[in-house]
Amino acid sequence: PAKPSSKAIPIVMRAQTSHPLDPLSAAEILVAVATVRAAGATPEVRDGMRFIEVVLLEPEKNVVALADAYFFPPFQPSLLPRTKGGPVILEVHAATRGGHHRGKVISSEVVLVVQPSMDAMEYAECEAAVKSHPPFIEAMRKRGVEDMDLVMVDAWCVGYYSDADGPNRRLAKPLIFCRTESDCPMENGYARPVEGIHVLVDIRNNVIIEFEDRKLVPLPPADPLRNYTPGETRGGIDRSDVKPLQILQPEGPSFRVNGYFVQWQKWNFRIGFTPREGLVIHSVAYVDGSRGRRPIAHRLSFVEMVVPYGDPNEPHYRKNAFDAGEDGLGRNAHSLKKGCDCLGYIKYFDAHFTNYTGGVETIENCVCLHEEDHGILWKHQDWRTGLAEARRSRRLSASFICTVANYEYGFFWHFYQDGKIEAEVKLTGILSLGALGPGESRKYGTTIAPGLYAPVHQHFFVARMDMAVDCKPNEAFNQVVEVNVKVEETGLHNIHNNAFYAEEKLLRSELQAMRDCNPSSARHWIVRNTRTVNRTGLPAGYKLMPGPNCLPLAGPEAKFLRRAAFLKHNLWVTSYKHDEMYPGGEFPNQNPRINEGLATWVKKNRCLEETNIVLWYVFGVTHIPRLEDWPVMPVERIGFMLMPHGFFNCSPSVDVPPSPSVAEEEESVAPKLVPSVPLAKL
Amino acid sequence: PAKPSSKAIPIVMRAQTSHPLDPLSAAEILVAVATVRAAGATPEVRDGMRFIEVVLLEPEKNVVALADAYFFPPFQPSLLPRTKGGPVILEVHAATRGGHHRGKVISSEVVLVVQPSMDAMEYAECEAAVKSHPPFIEAMRKRGVEDMDLVMVDAWCVGYYSDADGPNRRLAKPLIFCRTESDCPMENGYARPVEGIHVLVDIRNNVIIEFEDRKLVPLPPADPLRNYTPGETRGGIDRSDVKPLQILQPEGPSFRVNGYFVQWQKWNFRIGFTPREGLVIHSVAYVDGSRGRRPIAHRLSFVEMVVPYGDPNEPHYRKNAFDAGEDGLGRNAHSLKKGCDCLGYIKYFDAHFTNYTGGVETIENCVCLHEEDHGILWKHQDWRTGLAEARRSRRLSASFICTVANYEYGFFWHFYQDGKIEAEVKLTGILSLGALGPGESRKYGTTIAPGLYAPVHQHFFVARMDMAVDCKPNEAFNQVVEVNVKVEETGLHNIHNNAFYAEEKLLRSELQAMRDCNPSSARHWIVRNTRTVNRTGLPAGYKLMPGPNCLPLAGPEAKFLRRAAFLKHNLWVTSYKHDEMYPGGEFPNQNPRINEGLATWVKKNRCLEETNIVLWYVFGVTHIPRLEDWPVMPVERIGFMLMPHGFFNCSPSVDVPPSPSVAEEEESVAPKLVPSVPLAKL
Ligand SMILES: [Co+2]
Ligand SMILES: [Co+2]
Repeated sequence: PAKPSSKAIPIVMRAQTSHPLDPLSAAEILVAVATVRAAGATPEVRDGMRFIEVVLLEPEKNVVALADAYFFPPFQPSLLPRTKGGPVILEVHAATRGGHHRGKVISSEVVLVVQPSMDAMEYAECEAAVKSHPPFIEAMRKRGVEDMDLVMVDAWCVGYYSDADGPNRRLAKPLIFCRTESDCPMENGYARPVEGIHVLVDIRNNVIIEFEDRKLVPLPPADPLRNYTPGETRGGIDRSDVKPLQILQPEGPSFRVNGYFVQWQKWNFRIGFTPREGLVIHSVAYVDGSRGRRPIAHRLSFVEMVVPYGDPNEPHYRKNAFDAGEDGLGRNAHSLKKGCDCLGYIKYFDAHFTNYTGGVETIENCVCLHEEDHGILWKHQDWRTGLAEARRSRRLSASFICTVANYEYGFFWHFYQDGKIEAEVKLTGILSLGALGPGESRKYGTTIAPGLYAPVHQHFFVARMDMAVDCKPNEAFNQVVEVNVKVEETGLHNIHNNAFYAEEKLLRSELQAMRDCNPSSARHWIVRNTRTVNRTGLPAGYKLMPGPNCLPLAGPEAKFLRRAAFLKHNLWVTSYKHDEMYPGGEFPNQNPRINEGLATWVKKNRCLEETNIVLWYVFGVTHIPRLEDWPVMPVERIGFMLMPHGFFNCSPSVDVPPSPSVAEEEESVAPKLVPSVPLAKL
Repeated sequence: PAKPSSKAIPIVMRAQTSHPLDPLSAAEILVAVATVRAAGATPEVRDGMRFIEVVLLEPEKNVVALADAYFFPPFQPSLLPRTKGGPVILEVHAATRGGHHRGKVISSEVVLVVQPSMDAMEYAECEAAVKSHPPFIEAMRKRGVEDMDLVMVDAWCVGYYSDADGPNRRLAKPLIFCRTESDCPMENGYARPVEGIHVLVDIRNNVIIEFEDRKLVPLPPADPLRNYTPGETRGGIDRSDVKPLQILQPEGPSFRVNGYFVQWQKWNFRIGFTPREGLVIHSVAYVDGSRGRRPIAHRLSFVEMVVPYGDPNEPHYRKNAFDAGEDGLGRNAHSLKKGCDCLGYIKYFDAHFTNYTGGVETIENCVCLHEEDHGILWKHQDWRTGLAEARRSRRLSASFICTVANYEYGFFWHFYQDGKIEAEVKLTGILSLGALGPGESRKYGTTIAPGLYAPVHQHFFVARMDMAVDCKPNEAFNQVVEVNVKVEETGLHNIHNNAFYAEEKLLRSELQAMRDCNPSSARHWIVRNTRTVNRTGLPAGYKLMPGPNCLPLAGPEAKFLRRAAFLKHNLWVTSYKHDEMYPGGEFPNQNPRINEGLATWVKKNRCLEETNIVLWYVFGVTHIPRLEDWPVMPVERIGFMLMPHGFFNCSPSVDVPPSPSVAEEEESVAPKLVPSVPLAKL
């Protein structure tokens, strides 16, 4: 009795104005869904179909190159819808014909023993099923809660701990919370976890399959500090001394956007979006004077994240959300608001994807593209003359933000004038709490308020970077070296004992390329082109510079590491293969297959000496909750940098012009000279 | 024949409008200098006096507290001038009388076998002495240079490698560079290091005491990429597609400044400035609702930095600049320019200090204070309702930038609405290069251009943080715990092997408190008040959260570590003592005394269980130069964070109000609606 399904639908002809990497339009999604649905044998099958994902099957790199070269020629991308429902799991390949809005099923395949990710409609159905289950109503009544409207049921995936969690059933193990009676629309229900109730839900059939009121843990008292909106419920008012700060770009932004193609300064790339990853950056290149457009990466995205919790007790040991593979970073993205989420001149992109029943959901203003001033870019002052040259740094940021249950994640790709690309994740949102009995505290977490504690946990992110350092279309001339600094031996050549040097080591094959960060040796990795050199005769390269990082704080036999073996190293390198996209495999939800994905692929131990290099950088932060993370956590940032290392002959930012100096601007920024009426009224 | 001297001059009455921690005014410096000079026995002695430093002797904490309590009462700060010249080194304590502009020498003391830091006038005198030395002129002629105006002689301190470097002589060992004939005012002379010439200068008497033309290394060819200003000399023009981006604060900034006292949001502190450290942040406190003004730190500053190079060859092994103690971060600070160095509404502070001959030098606009938008502060979106609350982060930055020879360092203290204080150093400027023979390359550096290489090196910074977590005046109730996460043992209580926990350990004494970073255990340190608790009953604390860090890549017997033993650990903790200010001792220049300073003080092994805690955080970055760091290095950032950990009962940023949303702002930021005439003309 398997369920989910996937179909790939090659579109014979997409609209001439779109590029093969453009995200799916709403129309394309609708055609794909209709095509798959129409292939159902009976009305019952057709109506029973549930759709997890309709995604663009990205064309091979040579097709993209052709499209880039001839602007917008005919091409054949594909759709990959996955349906759930009906009696079987199947994978369907189908084609749509752009002009006619009709599609055709090309092939279909049943994929056994997997569970695709959860859908928001399933969250809601699961909540409704639990809240109408009489024993649950009774259990809540025992805890003093009569009004079921106050109860929140957050469907969490079960992970895989034993055969009972296997994918032959589609399971959710919800966490229960209970709001107080309050008219606050943002009342923080996560402040009252309901513990001691075991519920297991079959979310395919919407039935409670296990229920037990195991232990009467009283609801924590309503924390007076639980809310983050002002007024009665927080018992406070907002501070009033934050004066407005506006970003003005009177001549507009420095970027140009054509469809999903972005040009900014010397950078260019394409914006993509998938339900699972959210923002994707395609075809990143830098225009380097007479050397023209030099590619750096084919495709950059966050392909998975895992948040393992460190409390061994129920229900926390089960919490290790794979927010991309189990939920979908893109499908849970926000519609952003100018002025609140982003300042300055903003170009937004909408995102489309299918919902559970095959309709199209659109998130307006989902991806944000904007410029930022980023402080000093470079400066030097001559001590003899006092003359100084300073330049300001401008960066271009592409980003989106998503919510998965209680937590928020913002994913940012920043492009800099000096050739750097920074990947940054911003973590915010609400801690996942547990209840404590009176006087109780927990070794595995921080007491946040009376009766409330926040278990320790880690947040891991996996950036997949399909690199193309100086590779023209169809070239696969990259390799990776690891650099470590070594202290020189004492001796006649090092009599002052100050010597050290950088030692390079080629990562020759995939098994050699499972590496961890090592700040003490300044370890980093450089993706090099094997055939292009800079003016000193050394290969052109881009360096992956780690930021702060960690490894899982868990025994190697930890259950969650069965599915997340990719967390065992900070860096993995593979030779590109089109279907190696998700480090825990395509279906991590309830996955019984140990080490699926990256940890298995690298056993092929493919040669990395000259190939299409894919970097998988795994980075994490250990979160020991603070009182100050409550009731909503101030943003924490974590990330890493791609930076040119011998890619250019000198700093590419040397030609950034000086900014207008003091006198010119002084008057227009002096507060007293600015009229107090809004500019729009002038 | 010792030379330098210091006097401390208690001012009986400072002007009533100044606070005991206000930086010295130009008048105060002049009085101090005149007082010391007048005490000279003969006209020759008086004229021969040279002044290294006139600094405020900061009053004891109780005097500051008194001043804070009674606003501006009489108080007795002191001046500490150091003079060089005359026949002896002496330390002078003297008093000035504010109203009458007269001072009085209170005491004087000869300090033997030390050399104070170098002065900019000495740089110039040293250059002139070398350039007029006939054997040097001949050596340059051999290298094809006739025009001595092209030659640059950068006086570097000699360090201490053997008795010959001892402080009985005042020595400089210059590095030589040679500009090309170019009319570019910013011609980058560092692009042509002149090697093979050994020069040792007695900079007290301005004589060359050793000279040898050891090896005829040809000058590197003029690198066409050496310059960073546009035009002929760089062979390029600036990019023209950077559109203006303005920061507008139509109602002015959110901070208020009264003299040197700064209030911003709930933060308040005092700006200080010394010639050696540059910016000092005094008396940092946070106004926490009904709990009032809660102190966090008495004094924050950067007290030293060291830049050891990793090439064992001449002249590079000698390069390990102590830029604070050998040169002075404050004395080498820049005059900042609005629009270039800083955007938005800026409050600048000037800085005053004595020059070598006792005149007052003023750096206008030396310290910059301004607000910045810093992205999202916190956000949560309810998945059930779609309602979102987001806040933008505003930060207040106090900063200065200095040049020491070729390199630039910007020092920033950022204050955030969520209680965080971030210390950030920005590194930029010009690499220190060596010359290579044709075809030569170096194991210890990166070839940057034909005949040019940049040795590997590290940049270390020492932040001294005299803490006062919740300590009222005269309270010394702080201690430090180290936190490490530990993986729980396998067993019945951890059957899924996911458990980990944070383990705290009190650092009981100074020798126990020499600690290194350890990202794998998420190691950090918390300064806690021993008597104040938060609402969960645990002590109020502030956490020192390390950023990326490293240790010296040198053998423990490295010569430069004699003077820089404080680099051997990332964290040191001491019990406050007023004269323990500089981790390498007061006079690191040519210092023969091994392990002076921090490494010696902690041998007292004072108890840290409840005291005035001083944190010394040592952090560094290993710099393997890239071609892209040339000809001027794009800013690299490194730093750390102080963040509340149980100091507040919940996030102090929860009351930040929402920003104006889309519609309100849309029109005023839309480029076409903004009039193209400057606002000032409206
Ligand atoms: Co967290
Ligand atoms: Co450097």
